[in-house]
Amino acid sequence: MNVIALKKTALISALVLGTSAPLVASANAPVVSSNITEAEVLAAQQAWGKALVQISRDFEAGGLNKARETANAVLDAAYGYNMGPVLFKPTLTVAPQTFRTTKEGALAYFVGGDKNYPNDSGFALKGWRAVDVKNTGIHLHGNTAISMGNVSITDKAGKVTTVDKTWGYVKDSTGNLRIVLHHSSLPYSPK
Amino acid sequence: MNVIALKKTALISALVLGTSAPLVASANAPVVSSNITEAEVLAAQQAWGKALVQISRDFEAGGLNKARETANAVLDAAYGYNMGPVLFKPTLTVAPQTFRTTKEGALAYFVGGDKNYPNDSGFALKGWRAVDVKNTGIHLHGNTAISMGNVSITDKAGKVTTVDKTWGYVKDSTGNLRIVLHHSSLPYSPK
Amino acid sequence: MNVIALKKTALISALVLGTSAPLVASANAPVVSSNITEAEVLAAQQAWGKALVQISRDFEAGGLNKARETANAVLDAAYGYNMGPVLFKPTLTVAPQTFRTTKEGALAYFVGGDKNYPNDSGFALKGWRAVDVKNTGIHLHGNTAISMGNVSITDKAGKVTTVDKTWGYVKDSTGNLRIVLHHSSLPYSPK
Amino acid sequence: MNVIALKKTALISALVLGTSAPLVASANAPVVSSNITEAEVLAAQQAWGKALVQISRDFEAGGLNKARETANAVLDAAYGYNMGPVLFKPTLTVAPQTFRTTKEGALAYFVGGDKNYPNDSGFALKGWRAVDVKNTGIHLHGNTAISMGNVSITDKAGKVTTVDKTWGYVKDSTGNLRIVLHHSSLPYSPK
Repeated sequence: MNVIALKKTALISALVLGTSAPLVASANAPVVSSNITEAEVLAAQQAWGKALVQISRDFEAGGLNKARETANAVLDAAYGYNMGPVLFKPTLTVAPQTFRTTKEGALAYFVGGDKNYPNDSGFALKGWRAVDVKNTGIHLHGNTAISMGNVSITDKAGKVTTVDKTWGYVKDSTGNLRIVLHHSSLPYSPK
Repeated sequence: MNVIALKKTALISALVLGTSAPLVASANAPVVSSNITEAEVLAAQQAWGKALVQISRDFEAGGLNKARETANAVLDAAYGYNMGPVLFKPTLTVAPQTFRTTKEGALAYFVGGDKNYPNDSGFALKGWRAVDVKNTGIHLHGNTAISMGNVSITDKAGKVTTVDKTWGYVKDSTGNLRIVLHHSSLPYSPK
Repeated sequence: MNVIALKKTALISALVLGTSAPLVASANAPVVSSNITEAEVLAAQQAWGKALVQISRDFEAGGLNKARETANAVLDAAYGYNMGPVLFKPTLTVAPQTFRTTKEGALAYFVGGDKNYPNDSGFALKGWRAVDVKNTGIHLHGNTAISMGNVSITDKAGKVTTVDKTWGYVKDSTGNLRIVLHHSSLPYSPK
Repeated sequence: MNVIALKKTALISALVLGTSAPLVASANAPVVSSNITEAEVLAAQQAWGKALVQISRDFEAGGLNKARETANAVLDAAYGYNMGPVLFKPTLTVAPQTFRTTKEGALAYFVGGDKNYPNDSGFALKGWRAVDVKNTGIHLHGNTAISMGNVSITDKAGKVTTVDKTWGYVKDSTGNLRIVLHHSSLPYSPK
């Protein structure tokens, strides 16, 4: 029963339309929902930030192999690569490898060390300590959701980097939100 | 803004992962949802019952033309015939006109008087006074929902008829729930 | 990649609006879809009919235990009891056990032999040989779908029973359609 | 009937399970779908490009008022501001007005001339002549869809600007796709 939100709500569905009609209260009925809630989106965002910091800490404590292991687990658990190509545009990628629709491409971006992605130095290895999400808006449509806003990440020197970020989620059958869209970009800087 | 549920919720999405990291609270973000809620399903059920009683009362007060006018308005407002064929199996129809996928067929069932539907005597004209819905369960999937349960309708003599009923809804762009599925049947009676 | 429909379609998304602008053809892009198709609904209906016949044959060849084993497997694979209460109103059930929202209730209906459901004699054990589905209409809404129509089942004596039937499906993350709604009723018979 | 995709498909849903069972073909059944198709996404993308060029041409032919009128009509027809805040991050906006969740903010971005948005010079006024969309991938989830890829826009001097772009759509009840998500960014440029 972990798949769905099951709720027993006291409800009055009796419909009384004549003056002498008795009031009849309906019994509670179970509700099954496949919809993503706002709380689930916020939790998924926090989990993403926590994972980014964890990869940084694991890199510092256990080296690249440990960091790669953690990043691999994060991609398996929190992204939708098992469902097909993920629409992932990381912050710092360049053409012709801007988009990372495969898990391999995403892993290379986060931890580097992949000769097929020579420009990747490992975004998640840069000493991140905290992530703050400021949502501009959230859309909930059935088992999908999208959010847009600013994400600020702080490194161990206290330096804060803020990006414009869009995430799109799909809830799978086990109730887990998976990122199927991730567009991150540095703020536009007029010359 | 009547289309969607817009909600400002105080939320803490700050993610604090180091002992010295400051707690940062995210500003409220608007949430747009196209999902049907349980409350909307219950309200749609009540509206259906209220409409059935209204047609009966209008028939008594204003005759068949008045009843037909009301039934016509109900079908326009509460059913999804504007979206295509509605999956409607009324309680008392017989083959080859069991299913009423067109508005004309539904109107004939509710108020009769249509020579193309010679077996229809006007289900909504039978002096209904109250409708009680007892849901067995409700499923919410994005802008669609389904409910199953018993519906008991009481006539002016106090006689109660109970049917097994399934409704399926789609929420349109104006936020209105429309019935796109309606399967009603008398309880099975073993011989 | 079995989860989703992945399609490479040649497409021209170049937009040429000036007379001298060159025609540019976009490369193929992969498409990920969680939507149920008409073909999937039809296949699920056929699978349901095939399963019903299989239970009958297994009962004849291997007795009640074999039939129950098969029915159990069918309920696990083709119904959504793992997602929560299923909205199941079988053809021949009576109050207060009309609705079978639990797997136990559904199993009792199909193969009987459950003292908690004393009126159940095992609907699937009655020598069924063929199932024919005549859809009146199908609705496709994302990863859900509903169908309504007549289902005619033929037993080994050649006797045909026709019911009015509604099915509702949800596609799970593995791409499998699961029945979350099933309302079946004998045709109305005017006295 | 313009709301939905209505399709009559020849289908064989007959289920033949015994060697002597007759083959029975089901009649065609109408199919109602609220799902967005790949073709609809591609058409919406082309319409966006065409609209951008039209605003440029209208500005050249009719001045700012004409351009604003066209841009206003485009926002009303192709964006989802009527459904609530749109998640719009244009290419060239800067904090604190990075996100344009209101129609006013979007209009200011496209045609400028709004004192409340002093940094906006009118992106759509810059002599655009052609728009080419190269999708990296498209996701279809019910009445929503998202696309990611490169969009290259050519001005009247032949200069091409390429951006990374994500669009999210919702199909409304009239069958019209509306942009509810639009994240556009210049390619990352390593120092």
